[in-house]
Amino acid sequence: MNMSGIKIALDVYGGDLAPDVNIDGAILALKGLKDLEITLVGKKDEINRLLEKRGFASERLSIYDAPDVFGMAEKPSQLLRKRNSSLFKTAELVKKNEVDAMVSAGNTGGVLVAGLFVVGRIKGIERGAIAVPISSKRGFTVLLDCGANLEVRPGHLRDFAKMGFEYARILGKESPLVGLLNVGEEEEKGTELVKEAFGMIKEALGETFVGNVEGRDILYGNVDVVVTDGFKGNVAMKTIEGTAKFIGDLLKMHIKQAGILGLLGGLLLKGAFNNLKKSLDPRIYGGAFILGVKGVVVKAHGNSDALAISNAIKVACNGVKGRLVEKLEARFGSE
Amino acid sequence: MNMSGIKIALDVYGGDLAPDVNIDGAILALKGLKDLEITLVGKKDEINRLLEKRGFASERLSIYDAPDVFGMAEKPSQLLRKRNSSLFKTAELVKKNEVDAMVSAGNTGGVLVAGLFVVGRIKGIERGAIAVPISSKRGFTVLLDCGANLEVRPGHLRDFAKMGFEYARILGKESPLVGLLNVGEEEEKGTELVKEAFGMIKEALGETFVGNVEGRDILYGNVDVVVTDGFKGNVAMKTIEGTAKFIGDLLKMHIKQAGILGLLGGLLLKGAFNNLKKSLDPRIYGGAFILGVKGVVVKAHGNSDALAISNAIKVACNGVKGRLVEKLEARFGSE
Repeated sequence: MNMSGIKIALDVYGGDLAPDVNIDGAILALKGLKDLEITLVGKKDEINRLLEKRGFASERLSIYDAPDVFGMAEKPSQLLRKRNSSLFKTAELVKKNEVDAMVSAGNTGGVLVAGLFVVGRIKGIERGAIAVPISSKRGFTVLLDCGANLEVRPGHLRDFAKMGFEYARILGKESPLVGLLNVGEEEEKGTELVKEAFGMIKEALGETFVGNVEGRDILYGNVDVVVTDGFKGNVAMKTIEGTAKFIGDLLKMHIKQAGILGLLGGLLLKGAFNNLKKSLDPRIYGGAFILGVKGVVVKAHGNSDALAISNAIKVACNGVKGRLVEKLEARFGSE
Repeated sequence: MNMSGIKIALDVYGGDLAPDVNIDGAILALKGLKDLEITLVGKKDEINRLLEKRGFASERLSIYDAPDVFGMAEKPSQLLRKRNSSLFKTAELVKKNEVDAMVSAGNTGGVLVAGLFVVGRIKGIERGAIAVPISSKRGFTVLLDCGANLEVRPGHLRDFAKMGFEYARILGKESPLVGLLNVGEEEEKGTELVKEAFGMIKEALGETFVGNVEGRDILYGNVDVVVTDGFKGNVAMKTIEGTAKFIGDLLKMHIKQAGILGLLGGLLLKGAFNNLKKSLDPRIYGGAFILGVKGVVVKAHGNSDALAISNAIKVACNGVKGRLVEKLEARFGSE
C-alpha cells in the first residue's frame, strides 16, 4: 500500500456503458476522495479526448495505455491471450504493485481470470470467490461464492467462510455471523459435501458460525455472511433481483388499479417509494470483491453507471485501507 | 377416479396448526365444491368432537381412524414404521384406491416418503419431485424440484422437465415453456451435469424448451416451468420468500419515515397493499405436488391455515380432474 494515497487502476473499457461511465465515475470518485489517485487504463488517445471534452484535469489522474478491449461476451480463458486489453493491463498494474487495487465493470469471468491468474492467488487459498454484499434486514449480508466456482469441495466452503468473515469485518461488521446455505437448519440436513463443510467451518470459525441457514435467511435471517458454492450463490443472487423487480411491478399495478385514490396515495408516498428503491439498489455497494486474490480486485456490475463506478472505487479503497489482502494472508498463512 | 365425485383423504394431524385448521379447511372445501367427498384421517373420537363443536355434519364427510401422529420434526424414513400415523394411513387410502388424492400439511420429508414409498412411483420415473407453483410475471411459474432430491443425474432433470410441463398444463397453461436453471443463458454455461441435462431436455421437449434460464427468470422471465435439483430449487424458493418479507418490511419502514403524509398515503393505498400481499401469498396455490407418484399427493405448507388447506384440497381436485397421473403414466410409459 502506497502511503502517499490510495492508487486505483480502473479498466476504462470494461462494462456495458464503457468508456464514458467509467471516466465519469473516476471523476466523481476523485472529487469525493482527496487521498485517491486513479490510473485510467485503456485507449490513451480516446481517453484524453474524453477527459478534454469534460474539461477535467487532475494531477491525481493518469492514463495507462492499453489498445485492446476484452469484450463482454468473450470466453474468460481468452483473457490470458489478450495481453494488450485494458482488463489484462489493469490487473498487471496490481500484480506489479504499481497500484493498490483495481476496478472493472467488464466480463465477470474475465475479471475473475484477471484476479486469479494475472494478479494471482493468496498462498493457502485454493479457490477465489466472488463475494457480493446484498441489502438485507441486517443492513447488508455478504453472499459468497456468487459464481466463481460452480462446483466445490468442503474445504473450499470453509475457506469461503473464513474469507467472507474478514470481508464483512472490513465492510463494517464488528463480529460477523457466518452461515452455511442449506435446505434446513438442522445439522444433519443437506448433501454429504455440505455436512462435511459444516464440520470444517465449525472448527475454523467457532462461535462465529451460526450453522446452517436457508434461502430466506440471506435477506431475512440473523446472519451476516452466507457461504455456498458459486452455482447456488449465483442462483440466489439473481433470484433476489428477479423477486424485487416482480414485486416492484406488482406494486405499481395494484396502485394503478386503485384508481384516483391510488394515484393520490402514490404521489404522497413517492418519497417513500424512492427510498425503498434506493435501499434495494445494488449500486450502493458498488461491486463485488474477488476474494482470495493477492490484491484488491473489485468487479462492478456490468451495467454500472457513473455513480456505481464511483462507489466501486470507494469499495476498493476500503479494501485497501482495511488491509483485506494482508488480513487474509495472515489468516491463511498461519495455518 | 371415482365417477360419483372426487374423494380426497386429508391428513388431519399434519401441519403446525393441526388438527383444527385441517378440519376447518375441509369444511370450507366441502362448502365450495359440491362434487367433493373428504375422508378425515386421524384420531376418530377427537375428530368427532371437533366436528360436533363446529356443528358441522355432511354425508360427504367421513372419518378414517388413525391413532398415531407423525411429528413435524421426525425423520422422514421413520414414517414407514409408523403405520398407524394419520399420514401413513392417508397415503394407504390412495394406494388402495379408496380415495382419488391426498392432502397433508405435515412433515415435508414424511409426505415425500408417503408418496414415493406408500403410494409408489409411476413406472419409468426414477425420482419424484416437489413441484411448487409460485406467483410470477407469467401469473405463476412452476419450480421443481423444491427439495425431494438434493443431488440428481441429468436424466432426472429431464424427467422433472417432462413432469413439470404436464403439471403446468393441468394448472392452466396451454403450452408451457420450460427452462433449465443455470448461471447464464448461453448453452455452454454450467456444470457438466447441467450441460448434459440441457441436451436431454431439448431432445425430450423440443421447442417447448427455452434453454437455460437464470435465477431472475423464476419470477421475471418468459418461462412457465423452471427445472433444477432439489437443493437449488429449495434455496430459490426460500430466497423468494425472504426477499418478499424483507421488501415488505422496508416498504413499511419507509412509509413510517415519511411522517404524516406517509400515513395518509398508506391509508389511501391500503387496498393496493393488501392486493399486493394477496398476489404474493403462497396460500393461493394451496400446495405443492409430489410429482412422479402413482396418485395425486399434495403437500400443503406446514403453517397452512384453513383457507390454505381448502385451496390445497382444490389443487388436489384439479390434479384428479386433469388426470395428472394418467397423463404422466402415458408420457413415461410410452418411451
